[in-house]
Amino acid sequence: MTPNISAAKAALSHLDMEENPATVRNKSRDFFWYSPVLKAELDHLEADFVINPKTEEEIIEILKVCYAHDVPVTMRGGGTGNYGQAIPLAGGCVIHTTQMNKVKEIGAGYVVVEPGAIIKEMDAEIKEKSGQELRMFPSTYAQASIGGFVAGGSGGVGSANWGALRDLGNINRLRVVTMEEEPRILEFTGEELHRVSHAYGTNGIITEIELPLAPAYEWVEMFVRFDTFRAATEFSGALTSEPGILIKLASVYAAPIAHSFFQRVKPYVTENDHLVGVMVAPHNMDGFMTLLGRHDDGDVIYRSDDLQWARSPGPMYEFGWNHTTLRALKFNKGLTYLQVRYGGDVDKVVEAYETFKGKLHMHLEVMREGNGLSFAGLPIVEPMNKDELDQLVADHEAMECMIFNPHRYTLEEGGRQSTDKRQIDFKREADPKGLLNPGKMIAWDEPDFDYADMYSYKGMRPKPEATE
Amino acid sequence: MTPNISAAKAALSHLDMEENPATVRNKSRDFFWYSPVLKAELDHLEADFVINPKTEEEIIEILKVCYAHDVPVTMRGGGTGNYGQAIPLAGGCVIHTTQMNKVKEIGAGYVVVEPGAIIKEMDAEIKEKSGQELRMFPSTYAQASIGGFVAGGSGGVGSANWGALRDLGNINRLRVVTMEEEPRILEFTGEELHRVSHAYGTNGIITEIELPLAPAYEWVEMFVRFDTFRAATEFSGALTSEPGILIKLASVYAAPIAHSFFQRVKPYVTENDHLVGVMVAPHNMDGFMTLLGRHDDGDVIYRSDDLQWARSPGPMYEFGWNHTTLRALKFNKGLTYLQVRYGGDVDKVVEAYETFKGKLHMHLEVMREGNGLSFAGLPIVEPMNKDELDQLVADHEAMECMIFNPHRYTLEEGGRQSTDKRQIDFKREADPKGLLNPGKMIAWDEPDFDYADMYSYKGMRPKPEATE
Repeated sequence: MTPNISAAKAALSHLDMEENPATVRNKSRDFFWYSPVLKAELDHLEADFVINPKTEEEIIEILKVCYAHDVPVTMRGGGTGNYGQAIPLAGGCVIHTTQMNKVKEIGAGYVVVEPGAIIKEMDAEIKEKSGQELRMFPSTYAQASIGGFVAGGSGGVGSANWGALRDLGNINRLRVVTMEEEPRILEFTGEELHRVSHAYGTNGIITEIELPLAPAYEWVEMFVRFDTFRAATEFSGALTSEPGILIKLASVYAAPIAHSFFQRVKPYVTENDHLVGVMVAPHNMDGFMTLLGRHDDGDVIYRSDDLQWARSPGPMYEFGWNHTTLRALKFNKGLTYLQVRYGGDVDKVVEAYETFKGKLHMHLEVMREGNGLSFAGLPIVEPMNKDELDQLVADHEAMECMIFNPHRYTLEEGGRQSTDKRQIDFKREADPKGLLNPGKMIAWDEPDFDYADMYSYKGMRPKPEATE
Repeated sequence: MTPNISAAKAALSHLDMEENPATVRNKSRDFFWYSPVLKAELDHLEADFVINPKTEEEIIEILKVCYAHDVPVTMRGGGTGNYGQAIPLAGGCVIHTTQMNKVKEIGAGYVVVEPGAIIKEMDAEIKEKSGQELRMFPSTYAQASIGGFVAGGSGGVGSANWGALRDLGNINRLRVVTMEEEPRILEFTGEELHRVSHAYGTNGIITEIELPLAPAYEWVEMFVRFDTFRAATEFSGALTSEPGILIKLASVYAAPIAHSFFQRVKPYVTENDHLVGVMVAPHNMDGFMTLLGRHDDGDVIYRSDDLQWARSPGPMYEFGWNHTTLRALKFNKGLTYLQVRYGGDVDKVVEAYETFKGKLHMHLEVMREGNGLSFAGLPIVEPMNKDELDQLVADHEAMECMIFNPHRYTLEEGGRQSTDKRQIDFKREADPKGLLNPGKMIAWDEPDFDYADMYSYKGMRPKPEATE
């Protein structure tokens, strides 16, 4: 199956197409460079052309044309994914959703939006019009698109209260277009949502999203300093366990993260200080301070509504989740990170902290999970090569710390190393030619893959075809 | 110390005083008659006079005068307490807060209100003015005052999401007047809240309350039918454990409660049907139905926004919490109830259900509790005498099911059978003569009480003094 790029481009030339090589290269990349492994694997890949559709009709037209000419299609929003979600492995067309950014409906507790809306912008509009806001968002709030978050994210700022994005109730409805001779438009709710959410656009194109909302508050943002990593972790867990204290974020930064990598925080901490970063509803500050009083070694060193600094540290969410890694990378491009699921046991977290000292700097995000909570680890990892990284992952797995490996570009390797039957079944139905974001779903290409080593997609097309 | 009732009355005669014997008797009683034990113990007690103050200044005046003349003072709001909280054991003055019912301030996430506000009325005002509502309320929403809930309640509709009233963050501030020669006005936040919240007005008079608010939604109210008690309990627990599904109520009614005692539900159930009653945010109905689909034996038999009945069952909250018992009492005045804390283990709940079959009908309310959830039991108990009830309590305690005995009128016996140091310490400070709701705090009268049998207050004054 050889793509006929020039025929597809000709048929789509009346649309908003990007052909400038610099633009095409730029829009073929995401934040995959957080990983030295992905950087080496994917840096040379790019699309043949990029289209910026304005409507669902235009998306359908692109899909029909690309289907007819066997051209791969990869979706891109803000391009802030860290797993190479938006990188076209086999060239072809990148659909950039930036112009499909309308907030279509706001109701009590929900919003209907187009996938290309930048999260910060849509949230501002929702807030202004209704006093509500999104339940959760990635730390790349200012750049990420909502479609990218739904298709490639797993949680974020807000998960401390609402759990993971995949948890029931955190996505209400997705409208999806298929990649067939005659694309179909489908509306997914309930269990069907799992077909296309967090599927990297491998089996359908999301054209409309309905999400639940929460009330918007002037969250009080704070840094709380602790003498020990254990004390910081225990406090963050205790905070997340208080049903009456409404929070949006509880992050733990082991020493010396704040001193080494948080430039505007550095003057206020030593290299031995462990920080907890939080966002607390203003009307629960009394409850928060009362809880903190029970953890007698915690000091609030910054408080957005009160104890301010000469130079504001900026929004608290730009310290947490993957922004912690981003800040570290600004100091040392050799650093990288992991994504670890420790579960709710503080002892296990502290054991991992002790075990991997010197190799990584512990960074946790606390999430509600089922009947309890879970510490999600996004530790900053000292410079190391692929083999060393693989060993570090294996060492975590030996301790029964589940890894969502951010040094892999496939759904399975970045997930639970197993086939998601709902996703592959829907891909068979909705993308019979396998043209959507090819190479990202191992189950499609190599059902018997054994995960012994990194998957290597055989259809990878290192250089784009010459444009006509 | 002999109260000089007539002198106190004379000094307060310019206030709104009730002396009509029927009114005084009526306002000296609460919902203590849920318990046959309390009915026998307290039925003959009443105040000497009742005053309806309009302002904090009037309350201060009443307290000064009663202090000077050694007259006991008992607070009363809606009079819906079940532990005899508002019954004056030693006569004296009942302060009825009904006219202190103003909503003083509504902000983003909080309200400031006077204690006598009827919860349903203040909630309607909050909703209309701000689109917000109270986090939690008792099933006696339509009659109860907010002051009574704070001083004598422990949780209710909303605790499925926000936990117990005593949990950090669920009360922000209490303004309290002391019972001294010169009453002081104190403002309590943080740990100090525990001095007077759930203290039955034994150590200070609450004159202003600041509470957190939540967004108001058109909650979808449902009855879901199950074949087994275990399935109903498991579903209610699973629902409360989903961080992304916003609920306000999850109650479990073992068979044959619905068939026997829920008149308008009866036509839709058999005596073998176990029900779960829920209130779910409308924008999370898709998540709810998805979760229900995973519990394949649950059928929605009533849904307020859709699957309605010829005769509406009325608000769902008037089935749950203590209204379950109230409905049963309408069918059989001999029935009563218990308050049990089972914790989060379904097996333990089911074990209790099997063990006490024939003696009680299991009714659960699911609450968030710390890092998890807890099943709060308010089982309906078959007619039995005090000794049998005491045995039933002992049998529960032997199974490590904690009982909050609703057949006792003291704070300690209705609580954890131990002295609350914060409450007694504050009583020493704020009520040196021990005139506030006397007989309700064992620690004040008999610090060495051993809880071997029911406490009997020696200062009980069976008949009111003749009015002048």
